Amino acid sequence: MSLTAEAVFQRLNAVRERQPLVHNITNFVVMNNTANALLALGASPAMVHSSDEVEDFVAISQALVVNIGTLYSEQVAASKLAVIRANTVGTPWILDPVGVGATPYRRTAAGALAALKPTVIRGNGSEILSLAQQSGQGRGVDSLHGSDAAVDAARQVVMTTGAVVAITGAVDFVTDGTRLGELHNGHPLMARVTGLGCSATAIIGAFLAIEPDAFSATVAGLAVFGVAGEIAAQHSAGPGSLQAALLDALYNLDQETFSRHFRYRESRIEPAKG
Amino acid sequence: MSLTAEAVFQRLNAVRERQPLVHNITNFVVMNNTANALLALGASPAMVHSSDEVEDFVAISQALVVNIGTLYSEQVAASKLAVIRANTVGTPWILDPVGVGATPYRRTAAGALAALKPTVIRGNGSEILSLAQQSGQGRGVDSLHGSDAAVDAARQVVMTTGAVVAITGAVDFVTDGTRLGELHNGHPLMARVTGLGCSATAIIGAFLAIEPDAFSATVAGLAVFGVAGEIAAQHSAGPGSLQAALLDALYNLDQETFSRHFRYRESRIEPAKG
Amino acid sequence: MSLTAEAVFQRLNAVRERQPLVHNITNFVVMNNTANALLALGASPAMVHSSDEVEDFVAISQALVVNIGTLYSEQVAASKLAVIRANTVGTPWILDPVGVGATPYRRTAAGALAALKPTVIRGNGSEILSLAQQSGQGRGVDSLHGSDAAVDAARQVVMTTGAVVAITGAVDFVTDGTRLGELHNGHPLMARVTGLGCSATAIIGAFLAIEPDAFSATVAGLAVFGVAGEIAAQHSAGPGSLQAALLDALYNLDQETFSRHFRYRESRIEPAKG
Repeated sequence: MSLTAEAVFQRLNAVRERQPLVHNITNFVVMNNTANALLALGASPAMVHSSDEVEDFVAISQALVVNIGTLYSEQVAASKLAVIRANTVGTPWILDPVGVGATPYRRTAAGALAALKPTVIRGNGSEILSLAQQSGQGRGVDSLHGSDAAVDAARQVVMTTGAVVAITGAVDFVTDGTRLGELHNGHPLMARVTGLGCSATAIIGAFLAIEPDAFSATVAGLAVFGVAGEIAAQHSAGPGSLQAALLDALYNLDQETFSRHFRYRESRIEPAKG
Repeated sequence: MSLTAEAVFQRLNAVRERQPLVHNITNFVVMNNTANALLALGASPAMVHSSDEVEDFVAISQALVVNIGTLYSEQVAASKLAVIRANTVGTPWILDPVGVGATPYRRTAAGALAALKPTVIRGNGSEILSLAQQSGQGRGVDSLHGSDAAVDAARQVVMTTGAVVAITGAVDFVTDGTRLGELHNGHPLMARVTGLGCSATAIIGAFLAIEPDAFSATVAGLAVFGVAGEIAAQHSAGPGSLQAALLDALYNLDQETFSRHFRYRESRIEPAKG
Repeated sequence: MSLTAEAVFQRLNAVRERQPLVHNITNFVVMNNTANALLALGASPAMVHSSDEVEDFVAISQALVVNIGTLYSEQVAASKLAVIRANTVGTPWILDPVGVGATPYRRTAAGALAALKPTVIRGNGSEILSLAQQSGQGRGVDSLHGSDAAVDAARQVVMTTGAVVAITGAVDFVTDGTRLGELHNGHPLMARVTGLGCSATAIIGAFLAIEPDAFSATVAGLAVFGVAGEIAAQHSAGPGSLQAALLDALYNLDQETFSRHFRYRESRIEPAKG
């Protein structure tokens, strides 16, 4: 059965009540915004990056967010250490492969992290396409177009990594290989604020902390974030005011408002062929 | 005699007139906000981190702020170098031991910095309790609760470090071992914005630059910041708008408004036993 | 012929249409704001710092911004690598020598970068004076005062580096050694928000990506940013609200509003004597 607005909001209430500690190894551009998005949601963010302490810190956290936006060698090492420990102690983690296709270094780092069994991977269409190409499935995804291509790429990445995969854009897609969720929330102005994709990733991280079904957690996180963005855009004069309004909207979001905006469709799909 | 609203505001005027250069070695999450809080207050912030230049920079600054929020080995080294030079040239400095209890690495770094004679240490209750436990006073502070426990821990940290100690929370406590200040300003919404504790630390830094009595400087900094936060919260729809409103309130704060909000009580206490 | 409001706005339209990719190696304080300023303008920002990928990334970018605000050894190395590649592939780049006069380390790093043929250098008066002193032109610029001194220093830096030089302040000056532009836009409140000089540098970077005449690109960038700041200040209650309003103003700026505010004068000057 498809996730209802009520079911999503129950999970938001769980985040607000339990205030899970979400460990972020993320980029320098969005650290402040991401922390504020998690606080506005009701979670407890921590930005902890040093290889000297990430293993200890992830062990006391309820979820881990790994984002390669401004990666550098020490951060890649710290991310791997944190992920290995997360996998050992059973902490769910989400990978945001920012700009993975842009440079060989980024492809190598993202590929190595994707191979370490993330619970969820979230990216935009070209990032997920890039990951799918790297996975060497024997067919080019370059030749495909639009949302069909994106969904196909997502299915390939599910197959090669075992992760739930989310592609965000004008429409957000989420798949675990057999379920396909489509979210029609958000607002175009959100693309003019830096790092809102990274905030979406962190928000999913908070839902992973309280919801064992990673597909449901991912849909819930994107739904809450998209609805908050939509409400914020209605009260914004531009991208500057949107940034503050989005945090206010996340903080104030109530079930009635959420249900009125939530636009979600779920279907069954065939897994990608090996 | 207890600090009056007028006495605090005189110090704010001194900051605004002298625009002291405040050297910050702080975490990546709050760098922007902290710089903006200092600018809105009337000080001149500089964020200078490299071990290649911190010694030179601290020597031309009027105060130093050391914050371990996103510490890493190079930053710990740079912090120690800056602190040693600050002590040599007589620059006051404040330590913010963010999350000190969370990992062994953080405990070691914060302990080493606390041993280097900070002028002031500011933390939340659990951070100061953690520092007190490390100081090895032979009795557990874990077993104590609430503000009595916090004040007791603060007194122990005063005794072992020689610093003025501030504990911020719903009520802020400041002590130098014999005086105890209690501030009842601020607003609960401030806890939903990342790094406002770090901003409070930086603001105290600015007051240390113009006020040789570290206890008075600390009370003044927390009072101004708490009152500004309180005013800002009245005009905010959530944590996003609070962040901007807080900077506006700091910038616009006048003596009449400050005096109307200032809620402070000062008493004499016994120093902690050695 | 002097640049007209229409000519400047045509260039803004070109940025909005082509959305150039602007590679930033910048400081940690302003990364978020700078990215947001570029997005609000209509450009595509990327913050990419690692020496493992800057050479690859600059080669796919249309402009490079190098800002030494929170420099450290790895960033200096990465900046040099990026600049050398930019020069090889013909990507224009702009240098922001933040605080160059403050420490020997900063002077060395800024001097080394300035020697690598930046397309444009933007700084405040004291930063450009400091660069001029380093250039060893045999006469002290310390003894000069006010805008004459600033313009004289700018001409010296033009002569020694070959760059277009911009000095921003209450009045902005731009010179390529023979043309001198004077911009009377902006607002004093802008000095109370951290990193707006850095944002101005990044905005110039975006104009360099679409305008081969570096002098015109620099004037256009400063004009658009100054006018946006001026409009934003009219709608701001302080430095906190200014920050958001500035992004909104950049995003919403139309030609009629821009033309009404644009205050620019251009004259011919003699190049500095060698």
